[in-house]
Amino acid sequence: MTPQKLLLLPGDGIGPEVMGEVQRLIDWLNAQGLTQFETETGLVGGCAYDADKVAITDATVAKAKAADAILLGAVGGPKWDPVPFDVRPEAGLLRLRKDLELFANLRPAICYPALAEASSLKREIIEGLDIVIVRELTGGVYFGEPKEITDLGNGQKRAVDTQVYETYEIERIARVAFELARKRGNKVTSMEKRNVMKSGVLWNEVVTRVHANEYKDVKLEHQLADSGGMQLVRNPKQFDVIVTDNLFGDVLSDIAAMLTGSLGMLPSASLGAADAKTGKRKALYEPVHGSAPDIAGKGLANPVAMLASFAMALRYSFDMGKLADTIEKAIANVLDKGVRTGDIAPAGTKSVSTSQMGEAVLKEV
Amino acid sequence: MTPQKLLLLPGDGIGPEVMGEVQRLIDWLNAQGLTQFETETGLVGGCAYDADKVAITDATVAKAKAADAILLGAVGGPKWDPVPFDVRPEAGLLRLRKDLELFANLRPAICYPALAEASSLKREIIEGLDIVIVRELTGGVYFGEPKEITDLGNGQKRAVDTQVYETYEIERIARVAFELARKRGNKVTSMEKRNVMKSGVLWNEVVTRVHANEYKDVKLEHQLADSGGMQLVRNPKQFDVIVTDNLFGDVLSDIAAMLTGSLGMLPSASLGAADAKTGKRKALYEPVHGSAPDIAGKGLANPVAMLASFAMALRYSFDMGKLADTIEKAIANVLDKGVRTGDIAPAGTKSVSTSQMGEAVLKEV
Ligand SMILES: CC(C)[C@H](C(=O)O)[C@@H](O)C(=O)O
Ligand SMILES: CC(C)[C@H](C(=O)O)[C@@H](O)C(=O)O
Repeated sequence: MTPQKLLLLPGDGIGPEVMGEVQRLIDWLNAQGLTQFETETGLVGGCAYDADKVAITDATVAKAKAADAILLGAVGGPKWDPVPFDVRPEAGLLRLRKDLELFANLRPAICYPALAEASSLKREIIEGLDIVIVRELTGGVYFGEPKEITDLGNGQKRAVDTQVYETYEIERIARVAFELARKRGNKVTSMEKRNVMKSGVLWNEVVTRVHANEYKDVKLEHQLADSGGMQLVRNPKQFDVIVTDNLFGDVLSDIAAMLTGSLGMLPSASLGAADAKTGKRKALYEPVHGSAPDIAGKGLANPVAMLASFAMALRYSFDMGKLADTIEKAIANVLDKGVRTGDIAPAGTKSVSTSQMGEAVLKEV
Repeated sequence: MTPQKLLLLPGDGIGPEVMGEVQRLIDWLNAQGLTQFETETGLVGGCAYDADKVAITDATVAKAKAADAILLGAVGGPKWDPVPFDVRPEAGLLRLRKDLELFANLRPAICYPALAEASSLKREIIEGLDIVIVRELTGGVYFGEPKEITDLGNGQKRAVDTQVYETYEIERIARVAFELARKRGNKVTSMEKRNVMKSGVLWNEVVTRVHANEYKDVKLEHQLADSGGMQLVRNPKQFDVIVTDNLFGDVLSDIAAMLTGSLGMLPSASLGAADAKTGKRKALYEPVHGSAPDIAGKGLANPVAMLASFAMALRYSFDMGKLADTIEKAIANVLDKGVRTGDIAPAGTKSVSTSQMGEAVLKEV
């Protein structure tokens, strides 16, 4: 077994706490000889700004490029609201996505049966939900130029962001969605606003063509992003794989995650293209939840999303699907036993700390 | 009483059916001498394209400018998918919004107590919900230039949409939100993506300044649009007035509407600036729901949202708040009596037709 290089970027807020539980799991797996991870850590986000006045250093980006996979906690917080736009915490995460060309963001929205009650939706609407949002991650309004604020005088300013998509960007994300659907429910729903946006027109056209030429066996539906959002709330189980652009994906995947009532449980994977020679993909794994500055440092955070992100890394980057299954099963068992951090504990019941939850999962593993 | 000019634009799909019920109500009100509406009708959307190869004619736009208020049904449908982008059905609605400068879109999301069960959310989360989304309607990515698809050769195209906001556009929509909040729960939540978009940075800055200079008595909160969407699903009652841009407003207001389980019941108002001399505002009223081509022409559509849009017109354009109250009360009574169109009837129960519902509301009035 050759050593596997993992870069850990805990980030801000609850990031370090939840990453601590992954570190503990890795140490144990290494000690058992089940894995041979070499871990390095680095700074990204507000903590990088505090240390180096940038949201991520070139050195850390270089480490990220050299790693077999990256685990990231979360970035940002009100502390850095006054920081200049170019070096705000989010810029570090965005630079990683862009420089490593992690164009495919996979966000499963799964409702753990033990947690169906935590959802604001009725049990029958949400129980058993298992969908994946495939979000385009390196294009669209996140990166298009011009992106600027101009002073027009007279107290007036003009702010501009630019949504840009080229054919190849839509093709490659569509393929990721269709491939994934083949391994799942065999259905893809593509969402855009083609009735308003030219990028929506192109998106629709390219997804339709990729489907017709390469994936006729997969069922394809198109929905406008606004009614798609409604359908997510009305009847999320109608979906299998949803493919959409960077900005719609940001909003819709967060909504899908919240629907499940299991926000603190959901991992995500951001993948690059497969290397032509080795077949390997650059990859970054992170929880869907944010840095939750309000509860940071108190041992209240739920480490499950971070642990599940590590399981995703095992499956997608290290071909260790069985070990990933074991960890996911351990998480489900712990939940079945009623172990709950505060975010998922019903009002008035007892909850455990971040490290108690991490410990419980480790024991099950 | 001087005659009041109302332009009716039924549009496509179920638009004509639901507008028919408003026409019936207006005829009755006029006959009773309660109102003196002069109604004209016109074409917008796919039906205008079928007749004139445009989404709305200049003549209809001129009528709209001359009217005291406009009622619109809905536009669009798959029939016009192949139509060129510039004359697609939605272009008619967008031109009306832009040419009449209807920059303020008010979308109440109310849960009618009798319908709390129709929501996919748990009763306690949604019962009694009463919030308003104030959506900017004439700016942002809907209208910014460039908006184009360029052929790059080699089978590659590049699509561009441009999100543009100027200070004055944000100021005026912020004022609408704060004024509205003062008459309601006195709280405004502003949503943008300032961590990613420059327009979000400017939005946040301007809303904060308008608040500090003119509306210190109103409570102001800021949320990122993605977490705002989550909060809408998790606990919608935390909001009073939400103010956001054109595209986020499109998605979030649809989601808010769906949360209530009362989508077929919800009206909206699109208002221009008050005229310096007369104090009058240009205004267009329309249901939040779409053209629902799948059920069009079958007498299945729910006319309540259209009737409630008319009630909004009475209140905001004609200073007839009392009559508006009467109509809204009539709608609530009809629902309390258990009269239901198919969209809101629990599975296995009897439902009434579009005209039976219109008739029932009229009788209550
Ligand atoms: C932190 C922020 C830049 C990021 C995004 O908007 O993409 C986050 O919301 C996410 O969804 O990963
Ligand atoms: C029909 C369409 C152009 C419109 C929009 O996107 O604004 C609709 O979805 C709405 O919300 O009024």
